[in-house]
Amino acid sequence: MEAWQERLLAEERSAVLGTIARSGLPQLVPVCFAPVGGDIAIAIDEKPKQGVTLARVRNIERDPRATLLVDHYEDAWEQLAWLRLEGNAEVLQRGDEWPDALDALRGRYPRYRTMALEELSLIRLRPTRVVGWRWQDGQARELKT
Amino acid sequence: MEAWQERLLAEERSAVLGTIARSGLPQLVPVCFAPVGGDIAIAIDEKPKQGVTLARVRNIERDPRATLLVDHYEDAWEQLAWLRLEGNAEVLQRGDEWPDALDALRGRYPRYRTMALEELSLIRLRPTRVVGWRWQDGQARELKT
Repeated sequence: MEAWQERLLAEERSAVLGTIARSGLPQLVPVCFAPVGGDIAIAIDEKPKQGVTLARVRNIERDPRATLLVDHYEDAWEQLAWLRLEGNAEVLQRGDEWPDALDALRGRYPRYRTMALEELSLIRLRPTRVVGWRWQDGQARELKT
Repeated sequence: MEAWQERLLAEERSAVLGTIARSGLPQLVPVCFAPVGGDIAIAIDEKPKQGVTLARVRNIERDPRATLLVDHYEDAWEQLAWLRLEGNAEVLQRGDEWPDALDALRGRYPRYRTMALEELSLIRLRPTRVVGWRWQDGQARELKT
């Protein structure tokens, strides 16, 4: 990954996760995330309704393919940049299965420091394809991982 | 649509469009957009490589189902809010087929005022399902349109 792409991942505070609904429609949801050794960690910190699994979890369990879009928008379009990570996602039932992810998430988001992430589920996205785009480069560039 | 949702649409500067790639994977791309009488207008202002159609256009022509996610992120999570519009998209070959959209896009993005949007393609998304979520409400709420 190029330096500006690493920086974008490090600096952006939220991203959009796309999974595949049963109907085939992209199911989009904003997420907090942290890069962890080449993978992306996402905590499932919403309380679903009693007894109901979140759609993104059901989708990943049915079809692990997922996409994360990290976008940097400014009205000065010369500063536009985004990064798209496509790959396979997995749901870890408990955060303590991936301690590095908890450290990374807590490092980025102070709110997570007071939450029992150990007991919550995590999504682990392993990118197999990364596409980055900057206004200043003109064309999207693909980087095979 | 509730007042806060109208406000979110009016105030957010970028959103993420999800279309369906041939492989079934969600194809995510950040877009500038404008609400126009219940629909969403998106200008196709990138220059694709010579003779190559943008993936989002090919996808919509193959399968018109698309999703737009409008996210408002703040580190003060009490302010988190997002809106997901699912529906059918259509590609208009020339902007002058939808003059209201050009006015709305130019009203929001000064950069569009100097661009010949009349000659560029537009995406028109007609939402059939709108889901809104705010931290302060706790649960996502669906609003049939």
